[in-house]
Amino acid sequence: MKAALLSSGVPAARIVDLAHDLPAHGVREAAFLVREMAKAFPPETVHLVVVDPGVGGRRQAIAIETNRGPVLIGPDNGVLVPLAEALGVRAVHRISGSKLLRRPRVGTTFDGRDLFAPAAARVAQGLRASALGPPTTLRRYSVPTPKRVPTGALGEVLHVDRFGNLITNVPSRWLGRNVSRLRVTVGRSRRRMVPFATSYEALGRGVLGTLGSSFGLVEVAVGEGRAADRLDARVGTPVTLDWRPRPRVRGEKDNSARPRKRR
Amino acid sequence: MKAALLSSGVPAARIVDLAHDLPAHGVREAAFLVREMAKAFPPETVHLVVVDPGVGGRRQAIAIETNRGPVLIGPDNGVLVPLAEALGVRAVHRISGSKLLRRPRVGTTFDGRDLFAPAAARVAQGLRASALGPPTTLRRYSVPTPKRVPTGALGEVLHVDRFGNLITNVPSRWLGRNVSRLRVTVGRSRRRMVPFATSYEALGRGVLGTLGSSFGLVEVAVGEGRAADRLDARVGTPVTLDWRPRPRVRGEKDNSARPRKRR
Amino acid sequence: MKAALLSSGVPAARIVDLAHDLPAHGVREAAFLVREMAKAFPPETVHLVVVDPGVGGRRQAIAIETNRGPVLIGPDNGVLVPLAEALGVRAVHRISGSKLLRRPRVGTTFDGRDLFAPAAARVAQGLRASALGPPTTLRRYSVPTPKRVPTGALGEVLHVDRFGNLITNVPSRWLGRNVSRLRVTVGRSRRRMVPFATSYEALGRGVLGTLGSSFGLVEVAVGEGRAADRLDARVGTPVTLDWRPRPRVRGEKDNSARPRKRR
Repeated sequence: MKAALLSSGVPAARIVDLAHDLPAHGVREAAFLVREMAKAFPPETVHLVVVDPGVGGRRQAIAIETNRGPVLIGPDNGVLVPLAEALGVRAVHRISGSKLLRRPRVGTTFDGRDLFAPAAARVAQGLRASALGPPTTLRRYSVPTPKRVPTGALGEVLHVDRFGNLITNVPSRWLGRNVSRLRVTVGRSRRRMVPFATSYEALGRGVLGTLGSSFGLVEVAVGEGRAADRLDARVGTPVTLDWRPRPRVRGEKDNSARPRKRR
Repeated sequence: MKAALLSSGVPAARIVDLAHDLPAHGVREAAFLVREMAKAFPPETVHLVVVDPGVGGRRQAIAIETNRGPVLIGPDNGVLVPLAEALGVRAVHRISGSKLLRRPRVGTTFDGRDLFAPAAARVAQGLRASALGPPTTLRRYSVPTPKRVPTGALGEVLHVDRFGNLITNVPSRWLGRNVSRLRVTVGRSRRRMVPFATSYEALGRGVLGTLGSSFGLVEVAVGEGRAADRLDARVGTPVTLDWRPRPRVRGEKDNSARPRKRR
Repeated sequence: MKAALLSSGVPAARIVDLAHDLPAHGVREAAFLVREMAKAFPPETVHLVVVDPGVGGRRQAIAIETNRGPVLIGPDNGVLVPLAEALGVRAVHRISGSKLLRRPRVGTTFDGRDLFAPAAARVAQGLRASALGPPTTLRRYSVPTPKRVPTGALGEVLHVDRFGNLITNVPSRWLGRNVSRLRVTVGRSRRRMVPFATSYEALGRGVLGTLGSSFGLVEVAVGEGRAADRLDARVGTPVTLDWRPRPRVRGEKDNSARPRKRR
């Protein structure tokens, strides 16, 4: 892909590597990571995203113009949707191969190199995205949405980072400023009361807890350990967070070291 | 190595990272990857390749001028040969340390930093490769060559990618345009009839099949799975591909769902 | 972090990626790697180092001006200390968030993006490090120091590289020029006589030995194998190297193939 960009006239000085290790077939997790990593780039950025298990199949190749400026280029499999929504969708165009491919493709399994990189290079050099092909619509894509419930929130694991921390889809701001502990259930693990800490350090080595992640989302972590392993969790595992009081269910265990009074 | 390049006057703006995770001691596999990744770069490129298990030993340090323009710099252990042949070898020079090393080496195990990077920096700044040292010859290096046989081809696995797909050394174009299924034997796995698909998606989840890879070579893959694990295959595992009819051997199983007539 | 740098006005052309895979919670090992990778960069470099398990806790954020020119920015957890000492510490400043943060933080767990990258961007654009905040002192940090003993040296494993080689903290120059074999004890493994080789190739496949590493330190390696696995060693494992004669202890095994005379 870099060879394709350079050969299309994009100088090395303008290429920024964002990630080389997005989850292989995990479009949903990749979509979340792409949004978080890419949303703060300057308006003149062209984002070239290739997480593309459906390459060679029926999915469209698209270019998205956004209200904030960046143009997004990649497959229409949902990987661009969260970022596009964060930046505001202005227009979507289907990338027409016939306008870009000067020679027969060498294979059918790498549109990143053969189609998306040449398209991104053209846009980086000033071509309007609308010149890449006709208008089209984004494929519908269901982003997992957290739900507010009386006691807190129901969500799921969006991402497991390389430290084994579980990034959920529940916004930290839902908790308000005064929550210091909450009840957590991850998948089939038992429900437990844990701290809502301000740092990994505050958790202490081996202690399971929650924090506001760098993504503005609640994160389940183990101090210097791997929450994913401890809780046998992965992307999509349901997470329940309760920070509001509710009647005690008979027989339920409260793992809180310092039980709170009911208010 | 980057410090060495920058300290030798190469601006950060001209450095392009190609790969940091080539197989540790796999010169042959790395050589194939280097060729596929590097062959499309512009003529003014200097390729600095350090896959160098023999560092500090008797292997030469070399610079290769190519007909298409790029200069290749690295160890003479074969890792540069497939790329050099793809670009056309014009001249080979031995890199003479005495012309490049301004201070005693700190160790004997990192020519990439101490010898190759300074050499590449000089060439990137306009020095002729011939000024790096005397002419020499490339060490002979046997690239695994696929064989045409009456029923198809005998080849081997050149590379296992991070998805577990097996890239063989058999060119896709040998199959012609009308092959939609072929018989595959990988290592000691049983012979089976599988589709020759146009996309991973067309394979379907968990289905074993073949495709034309992004490298222009036949690839053995499992839809959303790992062919390397399923077939217990690695680099160098023999692969037999049969797409032409031949007499049925007594007792042979045809795993084809829809057996073809003999022509 | 790259978005933060670009948004702060640092052009992509000036950003150099040094490492994305430093050990997650291994500040000491990371500190050593940072020193070895970063010490040869040009004087105008701003080193932005984020290995920061204590993020959000009480550790300071610091900027270090050095005698050789580079400015180092990161957490005051020791990860910058070996590099700072190699370059000469001129002054240390606490980074004051109030001078850099224009908007409320989105989370408490990523100072790399929210604090260090904006600080590094300002320094890269000409701001004096002293303008980032008030003078402070480096937290004391114990770097493991090797000891000379009559028979050789006592040290430890500083780093296990991706090939499983053990980089010790014993400088190769301590051995002098004429040592070709030495006795090695790694952790609880038995003491054994091994070659001090000039290359991995000279070791031979599967042979355990030592070399002068690319870092100027003695390295314990296995030819085309993983010394870390063979010796069950990790960062911090003690290493004894004996290259001077001493009285033979009764019952001790000498694993030397060619026993030397006592001198």
